[in-house]
Amino acid sequence: MTAILVLHGPNLNLLGKREPGVYGTTTLAELDAAISVHAASRGVRVECRQSNHEGALIDAIQGAAGQGFAAIVINPGALTHYSYALRDALTAVALPAVEVHLSNVHGREPFRHRSVTAGACRGQIAGFGVHSYTLGLDAALACLARG
Amino acid sequence: MTAILVLHGPNLNLLGKREPGVYGTTTLAELDAAISVHAASRGVRVECRQSNHEGALIDAIQGAAGQGFAAIVINPGALTHYSYALRDALTAVALPAVEVHLSNVHGREPFRHRSVTAGACRGQIAGFGVHSYTLGLDAALACLARG
Amino acid sequence: MTAILVLHGPNLNLLGKREPGVYGTTTLAELDAAISVHAASRGVRVECRQSNHEGALIDAIQGAAGQGFAAIVINPGALTHYSYALRDALTAVALPAVEVHLSNVHGREPFRHRSVTAGACRGQIAGFGVHSYTLGLDAALACLARG
Amino acid sequence: MTAILVLHGPNLNLLGKREPGVYGTTTLAELDAAISVHAASRGVRVECRQSNHEGALIDAIQGAAGQGFAAIVINPGALTHYSYALRDALTAVALPAVEVHLSNVHGREPFRHRSVTAGACRGQIAGFGVHSYTLGLDAALACLARG
Amino acid sequence: MTAILVLHGPNLNLLGKREPGVYGTTTLAELDAAISVHAASRGVRVECRQSNHEGALIDAIQGAAGQGFAAIVINPGALTHYSYALRDALTAVALPAVEVHLSNVHGREPFRHRSVTAGACRGQIAGFGVHSYTLGLDAALACLARG
Amino acid sequence: MTAILVLHGPNLNLLGKREPGVYGTTTLAELDAAISVHAASRGVRVECRQSNHEGALIDAIQGAAGQGFAAIVINPGALTHYSYALRDALTAVALPAVEVHLSNVHGREPFRHRSVTAGACRGQIAGFGVHSYTLGLDAALACLARG
Amino acid sequence: MTAILVLHGPNLNLLGKREPGVYGTTTLAELDAAISVHAASRGVRVECRQSNHEGALIDAIQGAAGQGFAAIVINPGALTHYSYALRDALTAVALPAVEVHLSNVHGREPFRHRSVTAGACRGQIAGFGVHSYTLGLDAALACLARG
Amino acid sequence: MTAILVLHGPNLNLLGKREPGVYGTTTLAELDAAISVHAASRGVRVECRQSNHEGALIDAIQGAAGQGFAAIVINPGALTHYSYALRDALTAVALPAVEVHLSNVHGREPFRHRSVTAGACRGQIAGFGVHSYTLGLDAALACLARG
Amino acid sequence: MTAILVLHGPNLNLLGKREPGVYGTTTLAELDAAISVHAASRGVRVECRQSNHEGALIDAIQGAAGQGFAAIVINPGALTHYSYALRDALTAVALPAVEVHLSNVHGREPFRHRSVTAGACRGQIAGFGVHSYTLGLDAALACLARG
Amino acid sequence: MTAILVLHGPNLNLLGKREPGVYGTTTLAELDAAISVHAASRGVRVECRQSNHEGALIDAIQGAAGQGFAAIVINPGALTHYSYALRDALTAVALPAVEVHLSNVHGREPFRHRSVTAGACRGQIAGFGVHSYTLGLDAALACLARG
Amino acid sequence: MTAILVLHGPNLNLLGKREPGVYGTTTLAELDAAISVHAASRGVRVECRQSNHEGALIDAIQGAAGQGFAAIVINPGALTHYSYALRDALTAVALPAVEVHLSNVHGREPFRHRSVTAGACRGQIAGFGVHSYTLGLDAALACLARG
Amino acid sequence: MTAILVLHGPNLNLLGKREPGVYGTTTLAELDAAISVHAASRGVRVECRQSNHEGALIDAIQGAAGQGFAAIVINPGALTHYSYALRDALTAVALPAVEVHLSNVHGREPFRHRSVTAGACRGQIAGFGVHSYTLGLDAALACLARG
Repeated sequence: MTAILVLHGPNLNLLGKREPGVYGTTTLAELDAAISVHAASRGVRVECRQSNHEGALIDAIQGAAGQGFAAIVINPGALTHYSYALRDALTAVALPAVEVHLSNVHGREPFRHRSVTAGACRGQIAGFGVHSYTLGLDAALACLARG
Repeated sequence: MTAILVLHGPNLNLLGKREPGVYGTTTLAELDAAISVHAASRGVRVECRQSNHEGALIDAIQGAAGQGFAAIVINPGALTHYSYALRDALTAVALPAVEVHLSNVHGREPFRHRSVTAGACRGQIAGFGVHSYTLGLDAALACLARG
Repeated sequence: MTAILVLHGPNLNLLGKREPGVYGTTTLAELDAAISVHAASRGVRVECRQSNHEGALIDAIQGAAGQGFAAIVINPGALTHYSYALRDALTAVALPAVEVHLSNVHGREPFRHRSVTAGACRGQIAGFGVHSYTLGLDAALACLARG
Repeated sequence: MTAILVLHGPNLNLLGKREPGVYGTTTLAELDAAISVHAASRGVRVECRQSNHEGALIDAIQGAAGQGFAAIVINPGALTHYSYALRDALTAVALPAVEVHLSNVHGREPFRHRSVTAGACRGQIAGFGVHSYTLGLDAALACLARG
Repeated sequence: MTAILVLHGPNLNLLGKREPGVYGTTTLAELDAAISVHAASRGVRVECRQSNHEGALIDAIQGAAGQGFAAIVINPGALTHYSYALRDALTAVALPAVEVHLSNVHGREPFRHRSVTAGACRGQIAGFGVHSYTLGLDAALACLARG
Repeated sequence: MTAILVLHGPNLNLLGKREPGVYGTTTLAELDAAISVHAASRGVRVECRQSNHEGALIDAIQGAAGQGFAAIVINPGALTHYSYALRDALTAVALPAVEVHLSNVHGREPFRHRSVTAGACRGQIAGFGVHSYTLGLDAALACLARG
Repeated sequence: MTAILVLHGPNLNLLGKREPGVYGTTTLAELDAAISVHAASRGVRVECRQSNHEGALIDAIQGAAGQGFAAIVINPGALTHYSYALRDALTAVALPAVEVHLSNVHGREPFRHRSVTAGACRGQIAGFGVHSYTLGLDAALACLARG
Repeated sequence: MTAILVLHGPNLNLLGKREPGVYGTTTLAELDAAISVHAASRGVRVECRQSNHEGALIDAIQGAAGQGFAAIVINPGALTHYSYALRDALTAVALPAVEVHLSNVHGREPFRHRSVTAGACRGQIAGFGVHSYTLGLDAALACLARG
Repeated sequence: MTAILVLHGPNLNLLGKREPGVYGTTTLAELDAAISVHAASRGVRVECRQSNHEGALIDAIQGAAGQGFAAIVINPGALTHYSYALRDALTAVALPAVEVHLSNVHGREPFRHRSVTAGACRGQIAGFGVHSYTLGLDAALACLARG
Repeated sequence: MTAILVLHGPNLNLLGKREPGVYGTTTLAELDAAISVHAASRGVRVECRQSNHEGALIDAIQGAAGQGFAAIVINPGALTHYSYALRDALTAVALPAVEVHLSNVHGREPFRHRSVTAGACRGQIAGFGVHSYTLGLDAALACLARG
Repeated sequence: MTAILVLHGPNLNLLGKREPGVYGTTTLAELDAAISVHAASRGVRVECRQSNHEGALIDAIQGAAGQGFAAIVINPGALTHYSYALRDALTAVALPAVEVHLSNVHGREPFRHRSVTAGACRGQIAGFGVHSYTLGLDAALACLARG
Repeated sequence: MTAILVLHGPNLNLLGKREPGVYGTTTLAELDAAISVHAASRGVRVECRQSNHEGALIDAIQGAAGQGFAAIVINPGALTHYSYALRDALTAVALPAVEVHLSNVHGREPFRHRSVTAGACRGQIAGFGVHSYTLGLDAALACLARG
């Protein structure tokens, strides 16, 4: 069974409590559950992890292939805007990755318009709340299908 | 039956012939067919239009609600990077819009990193070829579902 | 009888429906009527046209003198911020032109602060809603008076 | 009788003598007279003051309401381009203000394109010589009329 | 007989009347005649078209190969400085293109120094008035000759 | 008894009336009273002055030592963002100075993030309303204590 | 008893040994002791933590409310200048936070003038050595007092 | 007898006490005396004035011709770097002006490299301490000599 | 017989060996021969010189008129992008000059898009290999013809 | 025996597998072995550590002197381009440090040209693959030799 | 007898013929004669040299002290704006240097406002034609006098 | 015997006398001797040349292969920061080149952080005084060894 690693970056563990006007009221547990349900409907398995540590996210990306994951769906949180180390990790590993964002970063503060990590992914999906992740899962599967 | 307007901007009529290394070998007719099949599977109707004219795209966006469309999926092509008029049209109409791109604009030339239109949409999906559109359709439906 | 051409750029046909908090609730028809009434009170004739097409606006500017217009009052909409082609058209024709904006562009998003077209006009009037146009008409008449 | 304060910033006292190719040959006294005549035709009273001192202009703006003025028409001169203190004064007081310029600042040196004060006014009128002021007076009255 | 498409962008239909100090007194009809004479001397056929519409120019570029043209000589006018859509059209089609300008854009206003379209052509010729076009024709023929 | 000069820059005389959502409802007189009470509790004397004139503030800074003040607490208002003359005055005098701001300038418009004067002070305190001043007084005393 | 969390960012554990000309000779232990003494004098409890890890600081900020802290005083060290993740953490939690710096960052290298985190705090205090922290504590208490 | 007005801008009254490492130990009175001696040796009369007020300097520039001065030597102090109002005053009056600086502004902080006022003078002399003024006087005389 | 000076800047002596994918395999001797043949067909004489020394190129430009040359065709090589001294030389001499480049500089690295020298020439021709020079010769002759 | 700490930043543990066209096929273990061999030939001891965590690298730098290391050779990986915290750590400790890079960062993407950390080291060596480290070791020894 | 080296940079040998509206009609020989006369009146000897070669100017600066010159007066021409090598030469030698310009560079094209060399001189004098040099000579003597 | 060309750019002939605090007290002759000794220890021959002329350095680079050199070690001095002509020469020739700097350019003035030439070399070594050259020699040999 195809397995996909879902990575949540800094502050996503606060989901549901953090600026609900921007990020919605769904908690991270509820989000992960929704992703799992969606994955099951697609016949794939997901594992969701969250960390506030850039280094831990890099470790996870590097280890993903060895742990049997076929693709990565990642919301790097605010690291999106400056972490070239995360970018290099995504470039370095062979797995296809999809960058997702809950909010429409293109319509928020100027510093959020720039992603230093998306160029190292297959693509980016932003603005659809929980659906950014389920669409991201579908996108990752499409990447796997076309090879 | 819910209807969604799919708009293709400048040069997308050349799809399949234009830089296949970047944009793939699927033609616009094939892309539109794939979108329609996907829409049917979701129980919605789509109408696909293409124009090389900024003004024609604005006209279409303005007329969408009056023609019974509930949402817009738009690939503004290169207008993405400078057409504030398109942005204002998307802001002006009440319909939810989703911006899509075939290629991963975030990993190409610097001028393609900037979207002046995405901030006026609900979100952006980029990098998944034909799937950017089908994911965009799903994203539009999700926007309609949450109201 | 002196005739003045009033040109409305992209999205101004949505007036009254589009972001009423910014642009007010007067429709374009009502605006044109108000301009006509004002023109009549000044003893001049106006003709109002709107287009979402940059090229159509350029055509109109180029044709104005040949159609007997003595001056142009133009709200280029979002084209204000990037259309050097419109700027060149305004520079190329001998008619005096006045740039008008409904909202106070100087107090909105940074991209709206810049006008690439105003330098090719006699001046700019922004921020007074419908009155921007009637003041613009008066300004155009003043330009004609001083030659 | 409605009273409006007209403020002239630095160097406007040299009007008529200063770069007549840019600013015309009308003197400040003649300009003030023309404004008064126009005001009388509108049934309002104006008081015109000029200062080369940023602080004196701020004092005047702050005192305007207390002295019975209902609105301000201000040409901040070169302070337009850097005086955030003037901007804050205009923001701080409740009176509507209209920024005016004799010349078309949008078509001159790049530093004149930027106004740090116009965003704190209701709008800006530039390029019509003496008429910028009389149009500014009409604009101020329109602001008062719509409240 | 080899056929070459000559495209004139916005405002070039005003040639001869528009800023003659910059663009000369030759009219567009005279320019086209001169180009045709030159083409005949080279044993090739030219067709000259002008449009103020970005979309119409893109349509023409896309259609050129199908209409039997072997190369394009294009003066995009002010679109040179911002039309990424035109750039993408030039990149998308297989035909060699040569960008020409009547005036020496490199010695005029800063915004005219930048060409977003020339990088998608084989090269650029600027500053020689009518001769920019006839040299451009020769350049296009040279491109065809080397394949 | 140690004496400290408290300087309020442009528009601070409007305190309480000016944008209360940003600056609070305390008036300048009330603020000065609060500062005096706090000073008394620290066993020092303060004198509070306000001016809308950059030059007057410079005069005051230059005269402070001669008038027996041991330190300066200054809120330069909007002059913070451009008055290099104020900066030079603060650099020129031997007295330690503390820059204070009522609002959190770091979270407001971009132009307010930059202070050209703070580098010439011992430090900056911003964001705590009236307390910015009392904290600033304590900071000035700490500077005096360490010499 | 009100409890306040004091967070020291990267390299502050080297205090006293690190560039004493800039940061002074007080060690972190001495600084923490001074903060505790000051807190006691205010009738509050403080807990001081230091980490060189961005993620650990985010964890601490997120956990502060759950651990009974009412406010945060934070010196993010060099993370001040680029850690949007820290900024988002400060924005996400309900606790008032005060940013403090030992040195006057506004008078040092240009990269230190910019704080991406201060906008997510109630305010910033910089330049007073150990006193930046004790003033920060007082500022935090003032924030708590006004609610 | 030819008379020349020497204007000293903000903080020059502190000369001799202010950053002697940069500006030297000569006081303003001594500087003025040296200028007078030099003027006498050239057979001209000088009058030296200093002000910390931008407006007062503008007033002085505007009044110079009326008071019989034939030229101006001005050290605008820090106003050099931002006072477009001073620039406009220098442009507006017919008198030749020479900008002088005690220190070599081109070798100091970046903000001091830019002069917004020098372009409105005949030229600039910087870096020679007291001699910048005496050389400036000679330069002004040379300007008068060539008309 | 009209004589034209052809100047090759730094590194053009390596032609044929240097990055043949960019600059082609024609050697400088072959290029000069082709230019001479073309010149002969136009009834003019050319002299071709190459130097890696900016100063030698300036000397040559300055001496051209005195040596009987009527125009200059120059490929400044990489000096194009920074040599304001070369620009001043081209401005200083009365001869018409044409700037040529073998490759399409507008489609290469960003630093090659900028020419500081082209503004001092009559125009620029870039992208056509050897033909850039022969077209440049024709352009120079056209300049001479129109005077 | 002199001991030197060799620190590898984020993603260097992937060496040999990561973009071998850029970084070569040597693994980190092989690189560390080569460094050790080289160190032995120089009569010094090295210890090599790798971490994907910025904080862990800072901890290591801070602890180096206490653990008996005399110098540091560090490849900060992508942290080079933004980690001011790493820079401050390198500045804070007394040990000489040498920054090394496997690839020639000066010839890659623009963001890699900038090093915020090299200024806090004795120098930088980039572009020589494994040899960057052995040269870095020699450079560190040279720094130790000159004290 | 004190000797001073006067260096003229690129294109100054064209003086009198080159853009006389900007640089005047005095030839270089006449300029050098005027400088010599002025030097004689001051009791010093000058030697004037001109070169279009950056390297030759650097050689001259380096050799000046060895040839008995006590100071340098240099007009670097357009090298002023980019020659960091010239700057380094001026920094490297112990002789005081004065930068002079015939025209008022501060009022011309933006690229002429920046001097990379003046910071390595004692000061700069610009805008006074031939007098810039004689004033520069006096300035150099003043520098020598104060040591 | 392998031969390596060592090139010293502008002002390096002043070594030992020029800013010894930055560049050390070793003279160029001593440096060249040290390089030769080091080369001998590696069994290679070096030839060291210095020039203040950009063109002479380009000539030397171009001629190196023909004179039997296998690699180049170059310190371009200040040309590093602007000489695109030097960059093109290094790109054009087949020989591997190593850029070296005596001082740590990354920790000096901002203009020294940028190297336009290093991207055309195999790598860069900066900050180790004389050792930058001997390390550069070793680096060049490593480049030759790997081919």
